[in-house]
Amino acid sequence: MSLAIISPGRDPKVWIDALTFHQPDIDIQVYPNIDRPQDVEMALLWQHPPGYLSTLPNLKLISSLGAGVDHILRDSAVPESMPIVRIVDEKLTWSMTNYVIMGVLNFHRQITRYQADQKRKVWDMSNPEIQVNVGVMGVGALGGDVLDKLNYMGFPVFGYGFTEKKDFPYPYFSKNELPEFLKEINVLVCLLPLTPATENILNSDFFKKCKPGTYLINVARGKHLVEEDLIPALEEGFLSGALLDVYRTEPLPENHPFWEQERIQITPHIASVTNPQAASPQIIENFSRLKANQPLLNLVDRHKGY
Amino acid sequence: MSLAIISPGRDPKVWIDALTFHQPDIDIQVYPNIDRPQDVEMALLWQHPPGYLSTLPNLKLISSLGAGVDHILRDSAVPESMPIVRIVDEKLTWSMTNYVIMGVLNFHRQITRYQADQKRKVWDMSNPEIQVNVGVMGVGALGGDVLDKLNYMGFPVFGYGFTEKKDFPYPYFSKNELPEFLKEINVLVCLLPLTPATENILNSDFFKKCKPGTYLINVARGKHLVEEDLIPALEEGFLSGALLDVYRTEPLPENHPFWEQERIQITPHIASVTNPQAASPQIIENFSRLKANQPLLNLVDRHKGY
Repeated sequence: MSLAIISPGRDPKVWIDALTFHQPDIDIQVYPNIDRPQDVEMALLWQHPPGYLSTLPNLKLISSLGAGVDHILRDSAVPESMPIVRIVDEKLTWSMTNYVIMGVLNFHRQITRYQADQKRKVWDMSNPEIQVNVGVMGVGALGGDVLDKLNYMGFPVFGYGFTEKKDFPYPYFSKNELPEFLKEINVLVCLLPLTPATENILNSDFFKKCKPGTYLINVARGKHLVEEDLIPALEEGFLSGALLDVYRTEPLPENHPFWEQERIQITPHIASVTNPQAASPQIIENFSRLKANQPLLNLVDRHKGY
Repeated sequence: MSLAIISPGRDPKVWIDALTFHQPDIDIQVYPNIDRPQDVEMALLWQHPPGYLSTLPNLKLISSLGAGVDHILRDSAVPESMPIVRIVDEKLTWSMTNYVIMGVLNFHRQITRYQADQKRKVWDMSNPEIQVNVGVMGVGALGGDVLDKLNYMGFPVFGYGFTEKKDFPYPYFSKNELPEFLKEINVLVCLLPLTPATENILNSDFFKKCKPGTYLINVARGKHLVEEDLIPALEEGFLSGALLDVYRTEPLPENHPFWEQERIQITPHIASVTNPQAASPQIIENFSRLKANQPLLNLVDRHKGY
């Protein structure tokens, strides 16, 4: 019974080291050198080659190597009945929240304005703070932590999600209340899962509903944003700036217009990176539970998409 | 009985508006147009002309217009027996903490590195986080709030102050334990009050005790830092960068070398600005208590200097 790592283009060594640290006798095979495909019962995937899984006749469980599973669900060769689990990692939540709070504070305290002033040797003490109301789209483990921490810091926060929620601790807007949600906020954090319902949600129509000058932080998936709609929304003033960590094509192509936009700040998909040491115990636990036929950890609901 | 505002070079209107909003019949005189000096019993000061107070024969109470009182104490014409009060404003604490957390997160997540990468169109996902241990010098209302919020966010925090403290909620180092304190941390936040004991504390000897690569955030007073020692400390690697909000001369002179240092980020003394609306009730309360001969709020201990 072996565990396959299928994550083309990334060095698997950190994962092998972390998994064998936690279970020295674990049998790991790494794509593309899977020479005993019939032994593979669990596969760890990150952007696997579509269709490849059909070469693994005894596969019983798929685990994402991250929090998202959209890269798995879009492969139609994954059987409906195959259980899929994902990584739930406090460190991953911690990193994501820190990144988002950094983006919120840099907008609130206008750090790029002071950087420009420094270059021109300008001392301008006026209006040192932009009042911010932060809206978080997607209020699961990640969005919930962002809301809690910003609330503790004393910022007004608002949540938005596709499902109805009772007794949510902050003002909450569900699916059809998007215009009301956007009216309350001037910093928008996208932390939605990527599903057919959320793909392309950040588009021209959406931006027109924003309060003028809204600041966008997208740390979810590149496909949430219709990229060609972003620069017009900045030019028309619906948005005042954006901090982006994810893109439709990664690495961001060299000729992409985002690189040269002063009002768009780019980071290379590093808001939150799964830590192999932190994630390995839950992978090994699921591997054991699979053998023992026990309920799995962090099982994905395929109809919800997360 | 009148209240004098003595804050040359600043528009007093926001203060007059805020004070009269809270007490419409208050008698306010504004420097330099104080034509009934004998009526002045309380003076609100920010960088007043030294010696000017001796023209107010019936002055009984001085209030700083901010949290600091060093600008008052350095005027030897202020009688020893004159009570001095200062502004304690939650909004002021809130702003200061947000600024400091912004500085900590920008160092932790290396935002200037990603800005430079964006300019060169470089996609580099390696090492997205610098592990940070944050040390706060000065653990009063401001420093305590910074410690609490960073601790809540999950960062290791350490306090340093001149007095002994029992049962402090975080690792704490007192006066003579500076080397031990500096050994624990790689982000140093200066929030000390400015007193003869703390003036020039951030100097070459101090920086040599820091862990190589320590990041400095000075949001206290310009005189805490021996400015000519900072650039050598950066060049020698004791420090990796600095975020400064305060300077020995403000505005920072145009020929000052800090403007052009890539590793020094400058803001124009805006980390925390007293909000007249928030501060006026306590000024009016102290004015009333003075009349009624009651104990004053936020009284400064002149021997401690804060």
